[in-house]
Amino acid sequence: MTYAVIMAGGRGERFWPKSRQKYPKQFLPLISSKTMLQITVDRVKKFITPDKILIITAENYQEIVYQQIPDVPRENIILEPCGRDTAAAIGLAAVIIQQRDPSGLMVVLPADHYISDQDRFIEVLQGAEAAAAQNHAVTIGIPASRPETGFGYLSQGELYREHQGIPFYQVKKFTEKPDLAKALEFLEKGCYFWNSGIFIWRADLIRRLIAEHLPVLAAGLEKIEKAVGTPSFPQTLKKVYEGLPRISIDYGVMEKAEGVLMAVGDFGWDDVGSWNALESYKKKDQNGNILEGRGVLVDTKNTMVQVSDKVVATLGVHDLIVVENEGSILICHKDKAQDLKKVITALNERGYKEIL
Amino acid sequence: MTYAVIMAGGRGERFWPKSRQKYPKQFLPLISSKTMLQITVDRVKKFITPDKILIITAENYQEIVYQQIPDVPRENIILEPCGRDTAAAIGLAAVIIQQRDPSGLMVVLPADHYISDQDRFIEVLQGAEAAAAQNHAVTIGIPASRPETGFGYLSQGELYREHQGIPFYQVKKFTEKPDLAKALEFLEKGCYFWNSGIFIWRADLIRRLIAEHLPVLAAGLEKIEKAVGTPSFPQTLKKVYEGLPRISIDYGVMEKAEGVLMAVGDFGWDDVGSWNALESYKKKDQNGNILEGRGVLVDTKNTMVQVSDKVVATLGVHDLIVVENEGSILICHKDKAQDLKKVITALNERGYKEIL
Repeated sequence: MTYAVIMAGGRGERFWPKSRQKYPKQFLPLISSKTMLQITVDRVKKFITPDKILIITAENYQEIVYQQIPDVPRENIILEPCGRDTAAAIGLAAVIIQQRDPSGLMVVLPADHYISDQDRFIEVLQGAEAAAAQNHAVTIGIPASRPETGFGYLSQGELYREHQGIPFYQVKKFTEKPDLAKALEFLEKGCYFWNSGIFIWRADLIRRLIAEHLPVLAAGLEKIEKAVGTPSFPQTLKKVYEGLPRISIDYGVMEKAEGVLMAVGDFGWDDVGSWNALESYKKKDQNGNILEGRGVLVDTKNTMVQVSDKVVATLGVHDLIVVENEGSILICHKDKAQDLKKVITALNERGYKEIL
Repeated sequence: MTYAVIMAGGRGERFWPKSRQKYPKQFLPLISSKTMLQITVDRVKKFITPDKILIITAENYQEIVYQQIPDVPRENIILEPCGRDTAAAIGLAAVIIQQRDPSGLMVVLPADHYISDQDRFIEVLQGAEAAAAQNHAVTIGIPASRPETGFGYLSQGELYREHQGIPFYQVKKFTEKPDLAKALEFLEKGCYFWNSGIFIWRADLIRRLIAEHLPVLAAGLEKIEKAVGTPSFPQTLKKVYEGLPRISIDYGVMEKAEGVLMAVGDFGWDDVGSWNALESYKKKDQNGNILEGRGVLVDTKNTMVQVSDKVVATLGVHDLIVVENEGSILICHKDKAQDLKKVITALNERGYKEIL
């Protein structure tokens, strides 16, 4: 059987001050009236029933997930006692799935991405499912459409097969976020794909790959596995999880594993990674402005404003992002939206922890 | 005897959202811990005692003036029933002064200007007082130091006399706010002075000049004069004042009057006319930023931020004015601070009257 594992534990600092540590990106209605997590679950429900959808998140987001996703059974909401990056989260999900179906497949999906062509998305995932059933680790590569420096890349190896109209390539290499020159080179060469963070594999295969490349994590997962279904599970999970290595599945496993296949995900994808990314989902006025909330934009161009409490007035500005939410105001040049982490760090250093 | 007449009825839209219709510029502590009105009164008190200081303001600012200026007697706070610009206000003050001293002098001073050299200010005013006692209408001209387009100008005529080190010139012409080319020309020629709005004259002289150039106003003032000291004064004032022409003393009288003298006001003067003007009174950090309130300025240059409720974060911006106050946020490019009226108009049109 095929399970979906939706990764919803992220902290999402890139939408501060809308996103907060207590309420990160995946739980916000950033691009429609539904939250990113709700959109993700809706998308998955078209080919996986709710009883086989697992959501893995942090303990303190439990209530938010219950509220936002009432039709996924509560026993499918996996709570991490602490954040240990994606390798541990995926390993934990694999353990749970193996308990339910030792030969189960898992589709791993970030909770906060946008996909435009839902039908093609399902086609590609079902194609990938077929390959995963034949014991391949499959990752989805997105055709690069701009010299993006914020993503990891997959370099395309030989064509493995074309299955139901979906090409599968060997992955030659996982490449970390490039600089602009490198990103331009990748785009020109045309054989580099964005690493979407969407994976499809059998649970037992990823356990084996973890055992091979991350033995400390593998040992921890075995301890957790033994406690599943026993009264001591929560304590064991908490104790063991804290000691797990903090590493991503890309660094920890995928970069080292051999024989990984890449399915081409030509379904229109965006990680909605910064305030800038929201623009394409909003309606602009004739000056390229977006105003959500109360206010006036005078002699203002290409500016996105979201206010909740206050009435805002802009005058003679351009290319700004202005967001006011719960005690905070961000005023950011669009070219610097990628650097929002600097703001979080500065606010943290100055002791403004209550608004983070 | 010499009376000071401090003009404190202005609406001061140029410091929105700090200034509000209910609380305009002259009542705000913009450049120090004292308000502009308090600074003005303190300055005047060095040569005129509080019992001869009159403050003319709008009815709805009565309580603010009482609170901010407790040592000026309440009978010296003249309340305009409605705004009718400076000619009417000065005429009303002249009527009141004539009641107290028919040959009284009056020094007319805006309540919201900055003067750096207090001693020189007093010297110049005392020199002007002497000329006014000899029945001259005296205005103070400020040596222009930049091609300012926001001020009216006085063009210097012949030297009338030099008195106690203060040159007095005939005023050749009052010139309205020039465009930049004109202002540059004025600056180059060197014989143009800024019109400070500070005037010194006998009350009976300005009444005569009003009678000559603004007969409708003069007739109204006579009606008011007859009611002074009677129980019907408030009703008469209200009724008559509403019918007075709405015109400034410059347009209505000074531009037409002959023999006006200009004393050179070389005491360091600024009308503190926009958010930009505040910068010179504030301490900047090494990036040219000013932060009043809580927040962080990251990769930010030459930006002035004043927040009261919220924590602010700026990122990658420059040359902005950011002000948050009582339900409102302004984000304005420094080059556009002069256009703040456009924001007020836009907010008014959009129905956000409660924050104006």
